Amino acid sequence: MWFVGARGSVATTATVGLAALAEGLAAPVGLTTAGPEFDGVALPAFGDLVVGGHDVDDTPLVERARRLASGGMLPARLVEAVAPRLDAVDADLRLLPRTPRGTQRDEIERRAADIRDFRERHGLARVVVIDVASTEPLPADRPEFHDRAALEAVLDDPASERLPSSTLSAIAAVAAAGAPYACFTPSLSLGIPALQDLAAESGVPVAGQDGKTGETLLRTVLAPMFASRGMRVLSWAGANLLGGGDGATLADPGAVQSKLVSKNRGLHDLLGDDVVTPLHIDNVPDLGDLKTAWDHVHAEGFLDTRITLQTTWSAYDSTLAAPLVIDLARLLSLADGAGVTGPVAELGYFFKDPWGSDVHAFARQADDLVSWALRTAVRRSAAQVA
Amino acid sequence: MWFVGARGSVATTATVGLAALAEGLAAPVGLTTAGPEFDGVALPAFGDLVVGGHDVDDTPLVERARRLASGGMLPARLVEAVAPRLDAVDADLRLLPRTPRGTQRDEIERRAADIRDFRERHGLARVVVIDVASTEPLPADRPEFHDRAALEAVLDDPASERLPSSTLSAIAAVAAAGAPYACFTPSLSLGIPALQDLAAESGVPVAGQDGKTGETLLRTVLAPMFASRGMRVLSWAGANLLGGGDGATLADPGAVQSKLVSKNRGLHDLLGDDVVTPLHIDNVPDLGDLKTAWDHVHAEGFLDTRITLQTTWSAYDSTLAAPLVIDLARLLSLADGAGVTGPVAELGYFFKDPWGSDVHAFARQADDLVSWALRTAVRRSAAQVA
Amino acid sequence: MWFVGARGSVATTATVGLAALAEGLAAPVGLTTAGPEFDGVALPAFGDLVVGGHDVDDTPLVERARRLASGGMLPARLVEAVAPRLDAVDADLRLLPRTPRGTQRDEIERRAADIRDFRERHGLARVVVIDVASTEPLPADRPEFHDRAALEAVLDDPASERLPSSTLSAIAAVAAAGAPYACFTPSLSLGIPALQDLAAESGVPVAGQDGKTGETLLRTVLAPMFASRGMRVLSWAGANLLGGGDGATLADPGAVQSKLVSKNRGLHDLLGDDVVTPLHIDNVPDLGDLKTAWDHVHAEGFLDTRITLQTTWSAYDSTLAAPLVIDLARLLSLADGAGVTGPVAELGYFFKDPWGSDVHAFARQADDLVSWALRTAVRRSAAQVA
Amino acid sequence: MWFVGARGSVATTATVGLAALAEGLAAPVGLTTAGPEFDGVALPAFGDLVVGGHDVDDTPLVERARRLASGGMLPARLVEAVAPRLDAVDADLRLLPRTPRGTQRDEIERRAADIRDFRERHGLARVVVIDVASTEPLPADRPEFHDRAALEAVLDDPASERLPSSTLSAIAAVAAAGAPYACFTPSLSLGIPALQDLAAESGVPVAGQDGKTGETLLRTVLAPMFASRGMRVLSWAGANLLGGGDGATLADPGAVQSKLVSKNRGLHDLLGDDVVTPLHIDNVPDLGDLKTAWDHVHAEGFLDTRITLQTTWSAYDSTLAAPLVIDLARLLSLADGAGVTGPVAELGYFFKDPWGSDVHAFARQADDLVSWALRTAVRRSAAQVA
Repeated sequence: MWFVGARGSVATTATVGLAALAEGLAAPVGLTTAGPEFDGVALPAFGDLVVGGHDVDDTPLVERARRLASGGMLPARLVEAVAPRLDAVDADLRLLPRTPRGTQRDEIERRAADIRDFRERHGLARVVVIDVASTEPLPADRPEFHDRAALEAVLDDPASERLPSSTLSAIAAVAAAGAPYACFTPSLSLGIPALQDLAAESGVPVAGQDGKTGETLLRTVLAPMFASRGMRVLSWAGANLLGGGDGATLADPGAVQSKLVSKNRGLHDLLGDDVVTPLHIDNVPDLGDLKTAWDHVHAEGFLDTRITLQTTWSAYDSTLAAPLVIDLARLLSLADGAGVTGPVAELGYFFKDPWGSDVHAFARQADDLVSWALRTAVRRSAAQVA
Repeated sequence: MWFVGARGSVATTATVGLAALAEGLAAPVGLTTAGPEFDGVALPAFGDLVVGGHDVDDTPLVERARRLASGGMLPARLVEAVAPRLDAVDADLRLLPRTPRGTQRDEIERRAADIRDFRERHGLARVVVIDVASTEPLPADRPEFHDRAALEAVLDDPASERLPSSTLSAIAAVAAAGAPYACFTPSLSLGIPALQDLAAESGVPVAGQDGKTGETLLRTVLAPMFASRGMRVLSWAGANLLGGGDGATLADPGAVQSKLVSKNRGLHDLLGDDVVTPLHIDNVPDLGDLKTAWDHVHAEGFLDTRITLQTTWSAYDSTLAAPLVIDLARLLSLADGAGVTGPVAELGYFFKDPWGSDVHAFARQADDLVSWALRTAVRRSAAQVA
Repeated sequence: MWFVGARGSVATTATVGLAALAEGLAAPVGLTTAGPEFDGVALPAFGDLVVGGHDVDDTPLVERARRLASGGMLPARLVEAVAPRLDAVDADLRLLPRTPRGTQRDEIERRAADIRDFRERHGLARVVVIDVASTEPLPADRPEFHDRAALEAVLDDPASERLPSSTLSAIAAVAAAGAPYACFTPSLSLGIPALQDLAAESGVPVAGQDGKTGETLLRTVLAPMFASRGMRVLSWAGANLLGGGDGATLADPGAVQSKLVSKNRGLHDLLGDDVVTPLHIDNVPDLGDLKTAWDHVHAEGFLDTRITLQTTWSAYDSTLAAPLVIDLARLLSLADGAGVTGPVAELGYFFKDPWGSDVHAFARQADDLVSWALRTAVRRSAAQVA
Repeated sequence: MWFVGARGSVATTATVGLAALAEGLAAPVGLTTAGPEFDGVALPAFGDLVVGGHDVDDTPLVERARRLASGGMLPARLVEAVAPRLDAVDADLRLLPRTPRGTQRDEIERRAADIRDFRERHGLARVVVIDVASTEPLPADRPEFHDRAALEAVLDDPASERLPSSTLSAIAAVAAAGAPYACFTPSLSLGIPALQDLAAESGVPVAGQDGKTGETLLRTVLAPMFASRGMRVLSWAGANLLGGGDGATLADPGAVQSKLVSKNRGLHDLLGDDVVTPLHIDNVPDLGDLKTAWDHVHAEGFLDTRITLQTTWSAYDSTLAAPLVIDLARLLSLADGAGVTGPVAELGYFFKDPWGSDVHAFARQADDLVSWALRTAVRRSAAQVA
């Protein structure tokens, strides 16, 4: 596993967790792939996964983990127990320059070289790259987003306007390093027409985008209930409170906008475009990484009767995200081994804005994921035998 | 449709609603069978359904409807608009004695005769009987519950301890009148070993039991989410507040017990027996028929992290139930026409405690229902052609 | 009583309610001045209050009331029962031009003349003017707001930038018609330095501003609890959902801004300026006039322990406001009879942003109000005797 | 300070907290007596308070504190920092026999001797005894509860039915050791007619009963708001979820009954006896000491309008209680120094069921407490000067 944003909360939690799983210090609670429905699917063992990554920050990983522990997000004794493993991972993390110089092609090449070196150094069958970096503001549209040749030209022009870092990392992974890739954030990444076919061409599986962890998960679980029972949802309002690094990032109106669009997409897809969906994310520093989300749903039932549902969800977002990231690494590894290429629609289970799929209903996604995993496992065995 | 408890809130709401649907005064909001997934399935039209039933009370139906309207549960203008239809239904309602005399066999025969007369008077293809009467206390176990011959003997013995009224109505419908039957309450009905094969023997389809309308619906929607994501639910506590007739009925500790057992069954089935599930139903007369339910879920996520979810659901229970009752009548009519007999597992979608099925996960039930309806429609066409 | 905004939801509800109280069709629920603590305080009887007012709309009052009834806010039978009284009030309502012509002095004079005519026509001892019109956007600061002479000059200059309508009405009431006045909205009204002494000079009592009806009421009840117990409130976040006319008005970012500032003032005053207080008001048309507000409070207790409180308040805002408006009319009448002039600090009980007072703690305000009413009643008796 | 139940959660938290305050490791957050309104009132400094007590358990205090820390209730580093102080307190704790032998008089004498020894050993001006032991079931009424002579006889009769331990401790403190006393639990303690005058006779101040920490605090803050605004509260339902030792204790139906009665007393006193107040306390072990309480209030407003308020309160009950216990020790010390004897009505601020007072409204209690403290401080200075 190669994390973009390897010292952030999600990656740090995933790294600590993976170490704890490998050493048998934690049970695989919160992992989908540890469930009974995946019995017999040949996924990489926790102990076989090695972690590396990029970050613009160079605080030692064990320091990051201790900060999370002091905020109540991780058990302090666990962090100390796996500190040696965290130090080992530190040696595999590479610093990204905050203001890169040279052409963007050079930057992509440097990132890809880091990934390839990591693969060779550890003799790995493959490296799955997962972007868990801070949410970027979405850039305004540009002509090169729609034209592959123009985009390639831009990469070679040192004076051109730069692409978002998430896009450079995605190209580095998929095209330059031939690595399976998942985008766990709402940043631009591969989300432009000019890059749509990149993964299939490069022969690797990819998955995205924007992890479906808390409030949105809940919404895509609940909305199909209203639809199935023929109730007409009139409005679905949401208020999100969070502090921590993510709260601060989302205090930037540009970044929050990417998030809000992504969060409401599933709702409109499931319930129609007429539903009124006011949604706010507020940075409340004193709450730290504990995210609290209140939703208020107003539906019309039989004979104009009023139905209301309120939900309050409270959880540490990073500990919701971390096991999904490990799930994704295991499943993309399976997919790559089975020769799957391009966007994997069935991995939409993990995302607010699924690539290659317009299914948002969670139960359906869960069914699709399980049967895909079984099919892919069979296909992989066949490939290995052949 | 023949309602047991025809002047209660659910039946009155369903009767008003059906009249409004037949006259085009209301849209089929809240009905599952009006959804796009049922397009092409040949269900009886709303205008073709005729309502009759039994009750121990003889207040005119229009009076019952006006009381519901004054409590805010039905639009007053709608009640007035369909008043002539309600008066017509009144002529098809038959009074049940509160303390019946003679043998229980006689009582069953009288009830069945009422159903048969109704069928003949209106020239109906079939009568679907639906029990929506007040919840009865569950009786203690008795030897005749386990032995069909002993049960038959009891029916003929005027001195024997009487069976619950729900059981007499169920036998009257299924065995004596040959009518498809659904039990929408948690009362005993056919729920004893000695009656298990009655429906199949009688050649009619049956469905039950205890309508899944509000809080339990929500629970069977949400619980599979926790299971799929590998989160360990530790406790799921519930508080229900309601007034109205149902609140008063459930103030009886015997009746509430049937309900509580039924409400928690799905949760334990979906999440395991270790989940702590305190549950209360309080009679709060001032709330009228507006039911408010608060649930608090505590789950353990990755690395022992604490996840909590609270839900507050508020709705008129009878307007949630009424469209389901109409759905059931339409679907049991379809099933009967297609020659289906015995408990229909796929109608478990409508119930807290599904007969013939241990599937509680709502999304799975919804999928199963739709594909069953399509299969049954095909089977019915084939039967008609043949 | 003379309402500015006499056909709006609050005034219509107050007018219907006053008629119902006068005819004995409703109990004085929701009125502070009907409580036992006001026994013996000589306030005007409900039957002695006569209603008139201004509005830019000319829909008959009974029509407005029926619309509110159809939205569930008023009992329909009550509206019909008092329809003749509403028609009588209609004859005392005067239309305000949406785009007035001539000098602002002329406009003030026209409004004052309407008030004086009303007083004389009905032979009233006094007219209390209450502004319950829609919230206006707050204007940017202007030099004349700080200089009385400049302000007077502006009033006489037909080409000058116009003052908000709420300010013109307030001057009309207080200075031109010599009428006690209350501002129940967050609009500008008398809230500029140049008008600060207007009421005292004019010899009438005034009170303001912005009715404390729901969420803010709750906040000023709860915040003193945290303070008294030495708990440190870190954040107090709020989400407000409402539709109806008020929801639409507050969808205007200018108008909502006046409201948000006003809503948070009490919180900062009670808990300090460091409290983080994100607050949103969303227009959710399907909710109609039923306002739902969710608050999330995070406090630090002994030894850094985390305390959270969530509140969800749901009520029709206009039926919360209407009895307060009647209370204010009665109390300002008392004050005027006792010779009180200028802003009445003790009427701050009714407002988010009290004039003449920085007390926000509700219980203290309630104590102050009761003892002020007793003192003022004594003073009035003395004045009458003399 | 002498704790009855000195190794329980509340006493352990208070002891850790007092040590932390004395060493300047914690700020006095959550203490009422540290607020600005108590400036100038001569209360004992935190460093001058010495802790001793009784318990039936002999687990070392530092062990109890570590368990609380591992449950998230106390910061682990704080426990370690004050461990030496906890060990010192351990030396001042005395074991109570679970099944005492001999007469009850002997048992009282033994407890009083422990208290006197503690006072002399440390050269203390006075010892304030505070009962924070587990809630006992309330005993059925007995003749000796109403007759002081009969009660005295019972104390000397080794064969008599025993009084609750809380009552023995209270007599030991007040009558035998002459120590000021507070009862922080709903147990019997001094709550029988025969003991009503004991404190006044003994010349010490006493205060009780049943600490007002969370949900009840909130209720006595909110209920006066409804009353002041003339809203008619129809029902106030509550659901309490908690684990930990307190959850287990309250799983005993006898113990929970004492608590429920106590919790609803204030509500009926403030809002009238007609309010419907269903209330449940459930033992949910997985929640540990984090208590979550949901309240649902239904009120009628102007013109029969429906108002609902829901509150969800979540906090560690022991960290709410501990600072109040320290406040009580300081204030009873002040009272004793000023010569106050008998039940101190103004300390009702701290209790669900105030001795010597029927004031439940929290804001009024807060005002009364502050002015009492100021008066008592003045009286004490005068006493010292004299």
